[in-house]
Amino acid sequence: MKIIQKPNNARGTRDFGPKEMALRNYVFSIIKGHFEAFGFQTIETPAMENLSVLTGKYGDEGDQLLFKILNSGDYLSKVSGDPMNLGSKALLPQISEKGLRYDLTVPFARFVAMNRNEIAFPFRRSQIQPVWRADRPQKGRYREFYQCDADIIGSESLVNEAELIALFQSIFLGLGLKANLIINSRKILTGIVEAVGAADLFTPFAVAIDKLDKIGWDAVAIELESNGFAPSQIESLKRLFHFEGTNDEKVQLLTDFLAGNAIGLAGLSEIKSVLYLSSLNGFDNSNVFFDFKLARGLSYYTGLIYEGKASDLPFGSIVGGGRYDNLTEAFGLPNMSGVGISFGIERIIDVMRELNLFPDIQLSASKLLLTYFDEQGQSVAIRIANELRKDNLAIEVYPDIAKIKKSFEFADKKGIPFVGVIGGQEIKDGTVTLKEMKNGEQRVLSISDLVRALN
Amino acid sequence: MKIIQKPNNARGTRDFGPKEMALRNYVFSIIKGHFEAFGFQTIETPAMENLSVLTGKYGDEGDQLLFKILNSGDYLSKVSGDPMNLGSKALLPQISEKGLRYDLTVPFARFVAMNRNEIAFPFRRSQIQPVWRADRPQKGRYREFYQCDADIIGSESLVNEAELIALFQSIFLGLGLKANLIINSRKILTGIVEAVGAADLFTPFAVAIDKLDKIGWDAVAIELESNGFAPSQIESLKRLFHFEGTNDEKVQLLTDFLAGNAIGLAGLSEIKSVLYLSSLNGFDNSNVFFDFKLARGLSYYTGLIYEGKASDLPFGSIVGGGRYDNLTEAFGLPNMSGVGISFGIERIIDVMRELNLFPDIQLSASKLLLTYFDEQGQSVAIRIANELRKDNLAIEVYPDIAKIKKSFEFADKKGIPFVGVIGGQEIKDGTVTLKEMKNGEQRVLSISDLVRALN
Repeated sequence: MKIIQKPNNARGTRDFGPKEMALRNYVFSIIKGHFEAFGFQTIETPAMENLSVLTGKYGDEGDQLLFKILNSGDYLSKVSGDPMNLGSKALLPQISEKGLRYDLTVPFARFVAMNRNEIAFPFRRSQIQPVWRADRPQKGRYREFYQCDADIIGSESLVNEAELIALFQSIFLGLGLKANLIINSRKILTGIVEAVGAADLFTPFAVAIDKLDKIGWDAVAIELESNGFAPSQIESLKRLFHFEGTNDEKVQLLTDFLAGNAIGLAGLSEIKSVLYLSSLNGFDNSNVFFDFKLARGLSYYTGLIYEGKASDLPFGSIVGGGRYDNLTEAFGLPNMSGVGISFGIERIIDVMRELNLFPDIQLSASKLLLTYFDEQGQSVAIRIANELRKDNLAIEVYPDIAKIKKSFEFADKKGIPFVGVIGGQEIKDGTVTLKEMKNGEQRVLSISDLVRALN
Repeated sequence: MKIIQKPNNARGTRDFGPKEMALRNYVFSIIKGHFEAFGFQTIETPAMENLSVLTGKYGDEGDQLLFKILNSGDYLSKVSGDPMNLGSKALLPQISEKGLRYDLTVPFARFVAMNRNEIAFPFRRSQIQPVWRADRPQKGRYREFYQCDADIIGSESLVNEAELIALFQSIFLGLGLKANLIINSRKILTGIVEAVGAADLFTPFAVAIDKLDKIGWDAVAIELESNGFAPSQIESLKRLFHFEGTNDEKVQLLTDFLAGNAIGLAGLSEIKSVLYLSSLNGFDNSNVFFDFKLARGLSYYTGLIYEGKASDLPFGSIVGGGRYDNLTEAFGLPNMSGVGISFGIERIIDVMRELNLFPDIQLSASKLLLTYFDEQGQSVAIRIANELRKDNLAIEVYPDIAKIKKSFEFADKKGIPFVGVIGGQEIKDGTVTLKEMKNGEQRVLSISDLVRALN
């Protein structure tokens, strides 16, 4: 261990020190509490998955962004062919069988398929774990980050969608963070593209429309045209997507626009049901917006889709989700519809920091530092520390016989609010001199008074 | 997503379903609570580390067992030379720069070196995260498992050792699991091997002695001989290691045996101090045994070493730890002594299961399932569910209008203890019919009575 090196984190990864952890745990614990109140049961899946589980599930770009793990031992021993001739892509399956999970949804689907006989459906599962993506790191985008998901699988009922909306309201109320929820249905998007007579152009349509807020209509129109939409179709879409109105007005508009289109009207009917069911949940739902240009990237969504955004900051999406009909089919379990919501925990933390929404969290793990002048004091400190800990107090024993000033400086730097000094007189009297660091006040207290003073 | 495949976990990895998670979280939360009571502050480090941080820290075998991550993109593009001629080992640094962490200690040392200016020393840090090892999987040995560490770094005081012993006592008392703690000092082992005149044979000596309990003296003697120990030296060691006695008797024996040996006596003096300081902590310390044949494998220990074992099961070590003087030196920060303890959480869980020490943990996330006969009931269920959740009750809404029997069966399979039925009469009266699943008893209750009944 003598190799001296300037240490670094791997690119795009972060350490979380005690202060950062206190903020993160604050957010995690609120979210976990609400997950529990809604009956979600936690699972964990391993960081490493067989590549056969992961590849082909996230599109070509996703496959590129998977971190692959080199087979252990003499990984070249089973290679057939010349690696440089094969190239990186063809060589890969010969030297790597495992990868790091890219999201929590595919491992969840694998879990459901493997445990189908033990699970009581509909299964409400929550999962909070890190995922890894070989993305180019940039501000707010990391290669290792947590996801925080809740899904209800094994039921087609829209009550589940409504439950997830109540969960959304409940969590952001708990966090004290104002957020809007935008909802749409993939079926409505399908209906719209069918209604203008371009059914085969669904994907380029959804990709282009999803960018409307960012790039504006003219750029969207150019993209649609280059993908084969006719000018009359684009004109018809323009009228539709320029419409502004309430949720009800949008529903009315689409009732006309989609007249006679089965899938589109089915989607619209689902939106109406979900808005109605949500209206019963007792939360203020004026932050739920039906917006039929919401498309969301992930190809596995088949029904209702969600996106949450902070109301007071243009921070992009902090929540995503939707209904999927075929997620477990790739693992041999068809006809298992589910709906999920994913809280973008890293962004939520960033937004809350930006908006100063964190309460004054006690950053020091310890409430009291015990210090002393000599060996006798040290012995007494060890005894008292363990007595106080039984009263659920976080106590630290200063380890050295040193100038008392050093322990005050330590408490100050660490943010420990109280120092208990044990000198000769205190030992004789069975007391501790308690110094409150923020104002320097000192009191001589018995142990039982000390417990009261610290609680 | 149409590729149908029989899904599998990667070899040596596990999923944790809701039941397993409940047990794990029970153990984790007790340990975390005690970590906090002792003033330990949590940090997290990333799963991925640069290989320059990891390699060379765990010996050759450890380097072999590191999971390496393939560089992303066209990983062969920067390879110079013919891969097959280079071979797996020489090719490795050209195609892989990162690995998965092997333990929490080396990343912690990197963290301390990088954050030395912000940290108030002595720094009490805890860390509970998974680690990965490319070991051959077998019963109780996984390729992905959690470690659970507490360290105090930046102080040489033996008060820290005593604090970790108090932490050990406190945690196992909290878990209700009887465990013994065996302590020794690397310095005593050095003293012994010096005292018999074989100072240069420390490593084979420590390796052989550590196996004494497993393989018996005769096999140890053969191993010592084959490593160059003379018969008279072996005879002298035999007398020493056949000694049985109390902690005090062992201290007395070694005081004689190590007479005049500076490092050995220093180690012995440390053992005496730590036993004395621990005796003040208020716990029953009759489970702390000084045993001078304890060696422990990790080469970075330099002072006191620890090992914990369950008293009632021959399960191997469930706790390990010790003092290290030079852990951060490899990262450019010398003279930073620390002492750590690691709780073998996976084995602790296995032992507790084996000994039936888990309390009756509520495995269902939900306390109450709300069910109904029609759309009107469904609406009322959504409203009541969210009202009850505000009282900190975990509530699930059955999603479908179906035969009521189906929801009872669901509650039964999932272990939900209560079902609330909302029929026409209940809607009219503002009540719920509460059925207790374990005995079938039914009561008609107002919402406020329902809250009381469920709390």
